[in-house]
Amino acid sequence: MSGPGDFKPYDSGTTPRFQEIATFMRSQRHPISSEVDIALAGVPFDLGATYRLGARHGPAVTREASRLIRAVNPATKVAPFRLCNIADVGDAPTHPMKIEESIDLIQGFYEEIHAAGAWPLSVGGDHTVPLPILRAIAKDRPLGLFHVDAHADTFDDFMGTKINHATFVRRAVEENLIDPKRTIQVGLRGTRYGDDDIGYGNEVGITMVPMDEYEAMGREAFIKLALEVLGEEPCYLTVDIDGLDPRDCPGTGVPEPGGISMRDMQVIFRSMMGVNAVGGDICEVSPPHDPIGITFVNVANMMFEMACLMATNRSK
Amino acid sequence: MSGPGDFKPYDSGTTPRFQEIATFMRSQRHPISSEVDIALAGVPFDLGATYRLGARHGPAVTREASRLIRAVNPATKVAPFRLCNIADVGDAPTHPMKIEESIDLIQGFYEEIHAAGAWPLSVGGDHTVPLPILRAIAKDRPLGLFHVDAHADTFDDFMGTKINHATFVRRAVEENLIDPKRTIQVGLRGTRYGDDDIGYGNEVGITMVPMDEYEAMGREAFIKLALEVLGEEPCYLTVDIDGLDPRDCPGTGVPEPGGISMRDMQVIFRSMMGVNAVGGDICEVSPPHDPIGITFVNVANMMFEMACLMATNRSK
Amino acid sequence: MSGPGDFKPYDSGTTPRFQEIATFMRSQRHPISSEVDIALAGVPFDLGATYRLGARHGPAVTREASRLIRAVNPATKVAPFRLCNIADVGDAPTHPMKIEESIDLIQGFYEEIHAAGAWPLSVGGDHTVPLPILRAIAKDRPLGLFHVDAHADTFDDFMGTKINHATFVRRAVEENLIDPKRTIQVGLRGTRYGDDDIGYGNEVGITMVPMDEYEAMGREAFIKLALEVLGEEPCYLTVDIDGLDPRDCPGTGVPEPGGISMRDMQVIFRSMMGVNAVGGDICEVSPPHDPIGITFVNVANMMFEMACLMATNRSK
Amino acid sequence: MSGPGDFKPYDSGTTPRFQEIATFMRSQRHPISSEVDIALAGVPFDLGATYRLGARHGPAVTREASRLIRAVNPATKVAPFRLCNIADVGDAPTHPMKIEESIDLIQGFYEEIHAAGAWPLSVGGDHTVPLPILRAIAKDRPLGLFHVDAHADTFDDFMGTKINHATFVRRAVEENLIDPKRTIQVGLRGTRYGDDDIGYGNEVGITMVPMDEYEAMGREAFIKLALEVLGEEPCYLTVDIDGLDPRDCPGTGVPEPGGISMRDMQVIFRSMMGVNAVGGDICEVSPPHDPIGITFVNVANMMFEMACLMATNRSK
Amino acid sequence: MSGPGDFKPYDSGTTPRFQEIATFMRSQRHPISSEVDIALAGVPFDLGATYRLGARHGPAVTREASRLIRAVNPATKVAPFRLCNIADVGDAPTHPMKIEESIDLIQGFYEEIHAAGAWPLSVGGDHTVPLPILRAIAKDRPLGLFHVDAHADTFDDFMGTKINHATFVRRAVEENLIDPKRTIQVGLRGTRYGDDDIGYGNEVGITMVPMDEYEAMGREAFIKLALEVLGEEPCYLTVDIDGLDPRDCPGTGVPEPGGISMRDMQVIFRSMMGVNAVGGDICEVSPPHDPIGITFVNVANMMFEMACLMATNRSK
Amino acid sequence: MSGPGDFKPYDSGTTPRFQEIATFMRSQRHPISSEVDIALAGVPFDLGATYRLGARHGPAVTREASRLIRAVNPATKVAPFRLCNIADVGDAPTHPMKIEESIDLIQGFYEEIHAAGAWPLSVGGDHTVPLPILRAIAKDRPLGLFHVDAHADTFDDFMGTKINHATFVRRAVEENLIDPKRTIQVGLRGTRYGDDDIGYGNEVGITMVPMDEYEAMGREAFIKLALEVLGEEPCYLTVDIDGLDPRDCPGTGVPEPGGISMRDMQVIFRSMMGVNAVGGDICEVSPPHDPIGITFVNVANMMFEMACLMATNRSK
Repeated sequence: MSGPGDFKPYDSGTTPRFQEIATFMRSQRHPISSEVDIALAGVPFDLGATYRLGARHGPAVTREASRLIRAVNPATKVAPFRLCNIADVGDAPTHPMKIEESIDLIQGFYEEIHAAGAWPLSVGGDHTVPLPILRAIAKDRPLGLFHVDAHADTFDDFMGTKINHATFVRRAVEENLIDPKRTIQVGLRGTRYGDDDIGYGNEVGITMVPMDEYEAMGREAFIKLALEVLGEEPCYLTVDIDGLDPRDCPGTGVPEPGGISMRDMQVIFRSMMGVNAVGGDICEVSPPHDPIGITFVNVANMMFEMACLMATNRSK
Repeated sequence: MSGPGDFKPYDSGTTPRFQEIATFMRSQRHPISSEVDIALAGVPFDLGATYRLGARHGPAVTREASRLIRAVNPATKVAPFRLCNIADVGDAPTHPMKIEESIDLIQGFYEEIHAAGAWPLSVGGDHTVPLPILRAIAKDRPLGLFHVDAHADTFDDFMGTKINHATFVRRAVEENLIDPKRTIQVGLRGTRYGDDDIGYGNEVGITMVPMDEYEAMGREAFIKLALEVLGEEPCYLTVDIDGLDPRDCPGTGVPEPGGISMRDMQVIFRSMMGVNAVGGDICEVSPPHDPIGITFVNVANMMFEMACLMATNRSK
Repeated sequence: MSGPGDFKPYDSGTTPRFQEIATFMRSQRHPISSEVDIALAGVPFDLGATYRLGARHGPAVTREASRLIRAVNPATKVAPFRLCNIADVGDAPTHPMKIEESIDLIQGFYEEIHAAGAWPLSVGGDHTVPLPILRAIAKDRPLGLFHVDAHADTFDDFMGTKINHATFVRRAVEENLIDPKRTIQVGLRGTRYGDDDIGYGNEVGITMVPMDEYEAMGREAFIKLALEVLGEEPCYLTVDIDGLDPRDCPGTGVPEPGGISMRDMQVIFRSMMGVNAVGGDICEVSPPHDPIGITFVNVANMMFEMACLMATNRSK
Repeated sequence: MSGPGDFKPYDSGTTPRFQEIATFMRSQRHPISSEVDIALAGVPFDLGATYRLGARHGPAVTREASRLIRAVNPATKVAPFRLCNIADVGDAPTHPMKIEESIDLIQGFYEEIHAAGAWPLSVGGDHTVPLPILRAIAKDRPLGLFHVDAHADTFDDFMGTKINHATFVRRAVEENLIDPKRTIQVGLRGTRYGDDDIGYGNEVGITMVPMDEYEAMGREAFIKLALEVLGEEPCYLTVDIDGLDPRDCPGTGVPEPGGISMRDMQVIFRSMMGVNAVGGDICEVSPPHDPIGITFVNVANMMFEMACLMATNRSK
Repeated sequence: MSGPGDFKPYDSGTTPRFQEIATFMRSQRHPISSEVDIALAGVPFDLGATYRLGARHGPAVTREASRLIRAVNPATKVAPFRLCNIADVGDAPTHPMKIEESIDLIQGFYEEIHAAGAWPLSVGGDHTVPLPILRAIAKDRPLGLFHVDAHADTFDDFMGTKINHATFVRRAVEENLIDPKRTIQVGLRGTRYGDDDIGYGNEVGITMVPMDEYEAMGREAFIKLALEVLGEEPCYLTVDIDGLDPRDCPGTGVPEPGGISMRDMQVIFRSMMGVNAVGGDICEVSPPHDPIGITFVNVANMMFEMACLMATNRSK
Repeated sequence: MSGPGDFKPYDSGTTPRFQEIATFMRSQRHPISSEVDIALAGVPFDLGATYRLGARHGPAVTREASRLIRAVNPATKVAPFRLCNIADVGDAPTHPMKIEESIDLIQGFYEEIHAAGAWPLSVGGDHTVPLPILRAIAKDRPLGLFHVDAHADTFDDFMGTKINHATFVRRAVEENLIDPKRTIQVGLRGTRYGDDDIGYGNEVGITMVPMDEYEAMGREAFIKLALEVLGEEPCYLTVDIDGLDPRDCPGTGVPEPGGISMRDMQVIFRSMMGVNAVGGDICEVSPPHDPIGITFVNVANMMFEMACLMATNRSK
């Protein structure tokens, strides 16, 4: 409707970046439909967070920051918008005060995407968000999980609640939405509530790579390990941006020093081209906590890297 | 414990303002007890807000900003800390994700204050906060209400929830916690969802003073009206800072142009000295939305004005 | 396509404000067409500014801030979206480095709007923007002009250029796009380059109301004067936000102390309901210069007031 | 050396505002000499402040903000740079850690200015700064004083120190540098340390106009009173920017709600044209506390108003 | 008094982080006493700094940021609050304008801590602060020193003053408070005033590791070297945060590019577990210069690492 | 005129950093003359940029930030101001709205510098700026080019314009101002408009080192390569700060994740001492986009490194 072609994003070489209403990576706004291969979506929900909120505004600020993105990946030469139909399908519905109802609304939105045959690439929202997405797209068989985070998110509950941003991995394992054997977590490093914060992951067989181990093995070895863990079956990508170093992503609710660099994230995603990723998200993007906006520049670029990966996979 | 005397606040003429842990107006930290006449408290709760959150951090930032407050009111010469025992009793307990449970926890905290015979002066928190406070301190008889706000907060529900920052006045009337005949609202002016946003107030007999009327009648006439409405019976003071102009209080969730000036608020409170105020609060103070901090300077000074008013009343 | 109905904006009582891609006042995105009565548009152009740029990002930040707007005017009860079809038609095309070409592109966009029979309500962009708009919509007959500004914008040239943000009024008079006898300027007060900065206005018969006169006559008398000057013929509304006080609109390129208050602007627009306004704009909105965002809250509310005025006129 | 003429400031109509090294109001940098009529100077000193520092950076940020100033006063038509030789003579020397030594260094700098026959117009620095200036320029006879401030600055000592930003007026009276009978203070309103914070002023006969009185008498009556108090003898102007409302000057060390508006300050200075002002300063300008910069826009404009007043007097 | 137990900090798993008055790492507020093993203290003093001040507000902002800290170190599994009694003993007294008096007041406060048998862990304040601390706790025998800094702080004087943030190491050596043979400095790299800025260190035998050497030897070799230099005797830890890279700690008075990463600091402290540290501090934390707050997140985490190290040592 | 000696910069050990009008690295302000060896200059021009402007304010903010710079390089011991006469010659003239005219004005300014025999070291301005500089100083023979950037700047045109911040390298090659065989580019990594964004460089023989290659070869090998490419003939240094990582330089128009670290830039420049650099610039420094100021601290330090390199070369 408002763009130069059905699924062609605005070209910043002809339409200035500061022009037109911002969508994810300047893609076309499109309803959910079978024409869409990759559905870019926002999930403005942060009631699952425990400290500083604001991630409900994450999709809006990412759309704005992603005006910076151009067509072609400088390292891999992938041009995702040429490979398949990618569109911004808008935001999932949420309730501003009800957690469970919001989770159901979000799940319904992703069921619609899933039913249309599209693969979702989302910006949250706090890190409760992957749960309703996985409930929508992984109900038939568990997915592998590539999980970047400073925290394992494997608590059983937090202050008596089962659905929040510290529990989604456990819930997803319990509900058979992800396969712990094909799950790898990297960036783990926050100070801990108790001695066994990450005990559950060990118990069910998640491959956990805390920062010390990541640093010790090096980026290349980690990539190799991730590819092994994920295997060839379909998997899902989820990035809690506090997995990255606060230098790169200060605009988040629970920053933890000493994380993965944005440079490493770029190389990691570019090296995972063969992975069978059928969905992904970036969560805990909290605009009020980064007045400079470096966070959102990085989030937009990560979204592009994930789009390259998913588009390559989709077009195979 | 850590101060120069039991209920004497730090004197900024001998203890530099930037020294020591911040409490409300540099008062002593004290447990709730019968020695306390006025209990300064924080309510770090914002799950009742519908748009931009952050008021959970309101008490912390107000404590810090209130380092600016000195002992004596320059206009009325009231020195509240000389009139009675005023202490910072800390924050009400809350749950970071559960609304109803938080409301109950807050109510319990204020029941303790009420049982000790102290009068509460609080900083929220979103504007759901007065409800549990009133449930604790007004269960025996309805109070009058002096209410500064851009919105009437008289909705029956908001997206299906009954307890949120748009409904507390209606709930309080229904629960007989406030007497609508002794209730006056000023600052009303936000754009409206529908034609009858403020219909309920008319129905039950609340005296509503929208900005146009406030401006037309002038500050002095308004003060006279407020004194008439409130009468001599006990009343409660509540300030949603969006009642003030965004020039004075930009750091709030739902700013509305064209509000009451901080200067007017000072004069209004100073002119209400005879009012029988037995409690008060300032709500919707959202630190992430004011990087300059003018909001918190004003909130700290309003707290001082309300303390002057309550201390004068208490010491009668 | 993406909303609940053809021309119904998102209702913040059912779709949370933080949800969905921001459009002006949550209106529907719609192509320019004869169905549209009032076309909300952005003009991301700031090459005509002489000091601090950034107004090219004005439309984007105003769309985001206007999530705050609800359906009904609290003072006049006007609900503009009920009166006629109002839609966000996107941004005018511009060139990021060429002034004249951009001016032509903008004019072309507004000619399209004009040809469709819609009335434009725009957010700039620097204050060169009204010129191409007037060239598109006033070529048949000169319009009256209601002009809020700290500067008269009547220079003949600025450093040798004829088209810039200090000359648009002169150009518009010369091109017979506005009728100086039906033109009123208010807010004039910036320090001056020379003795005759505003001489041209006197010469051609523009009614100029510098701040001293505005203050001396008072708001009501000014409104009366404005209504007299504008008369009953079609007119255009243009607000350079530096006409307002920097307290209300710090986020602009050339702030000047001592301007009109946002409260006054609200009352002025609400009192001009009978005016035959067929278009309007708000210019010089520069996001990088206001990290708090009070500017954009006020701009969004002014846009709503102007929409109320134009919708009332359109539906007559 | 670097400008278009000896004492002609850069003309923003030919040299873009953003060009060249910033000086006060784009004036020429010039050594102290008998050619200079009005010496614009910075005093980067804030060791006399008691809470939040930063005013040492006040001169730098004011030079930058004063790029906005043009040649002619829009209300009075005064063009100060045409009336006499006005130049930026740089900053007074200071010591970064020694108060008394700094005070002596500053005094020496102003003695040089005074010896050259120039009148100083300065930007501080905290409000200790007027003391060494007055010691340099008023040693022969006491001056009248026009003093804008939220605080009377008449303490005898603060925590055992005699020279600080709360005592300069008392010291100046004791040293016969100012005549209390020809001294008027306006804007007084901060909460007080004790009951007699302003007792000294009453004792020695200073005319004090607290905010309540200012508001009650109105701007015009205040101007009349000020002209009466100041009389025809030489006087000095000093503005602690916390005398203004924090809406206009948030970037200061001790903001106090409810002060004088920048609009009033403009009108007051413009109405004091006949006053025999032989020097002036603006103090407590603290850049780290105003990321938006509205404070500095206002300070630059006040400097221009004071220059208009002094230049008119000088050229008589 | 205000917490769940005598020396148990608030548990963020039951008391939300945003609740209650902030203390260092949510520890209990406690008077100095023999029950306290490790005394967390603030030193709000910055009169020894030479450029940008603000470190007087360092303790307040660190208390707030340290709400993020949880109980257990993710790498070493150390849980410092379980190992010994750790409490927040408040701020050292200071004078807002007198350097020497402040130094004496600070020393007195730490003598009290030392007399009680507690080990101090402090947040400054500028980097003059370690001098009075060492005078209090090292008067009996010199301590080793682990010193992170961009500058050696070994000047003899700065502009004629002996006590300031550029001289503390030299004073401490002269006063036999630290043993230069057991002193190691790392992070040195700022541009220099002259050729021999760091000559004194060489002269007295301090082990200096400028950034080039640190990078060349690598983190592991540096840790080995540090352990050798410090040996088994008691030592003190001091971190001027400008030793870290400005990416990690922009909020400081004298940032210098190219410093140590926060990640390295974490690993270094975790690898120094055997060190006999009996005190430590983090200085030059200047809130006005970091509106995002990444600095304070890192400072809070460094405080936790130092607490782990000291608690392990204390509990041996 | 205003300093302690003809070409001696202010010594921060005797003149506090916060004192006096800021010039580049506290150098003396001096007219262009044959006495000047290295001319520090600003180029406040950003009309060649395509997205976010603001670099016109780059020179001002760099002057202010460079107050931090001291006399001696800590790694190389070079003290540039001792080696030759270095002065701040002010800003190049520009036109605020005309690109071509500005380019000509800038060229004229540098022709004057070149005619005087001085070597220019500049702060832009957008990255169109090197073109007029090279036209002035390289007309006699092509220079080598050391080019740090996220983008190759070798477009033929951008939206139909030939002179902008994406084309300067191509223009310079075409005009024989630089020798592509002696040109090396590093930091290249931004997403691309099309497949052949960097094709031109390959075609004409520019040595391009994208980030992946830079990381793969390592800093030392890159330095070796750069020295080989540049050879012994005169060369020019140009840094678009988006070549650095956004962690170090967020304040720029087009940030791209994953760039060169400031630490690497320091070491690279220090290792290029033998290079025959006869000029240099740092561009795309945009103050409105970095409210913290880490960008400008780094830019000031890079300027110092480049001055060390050029002064060493000049004094040979």
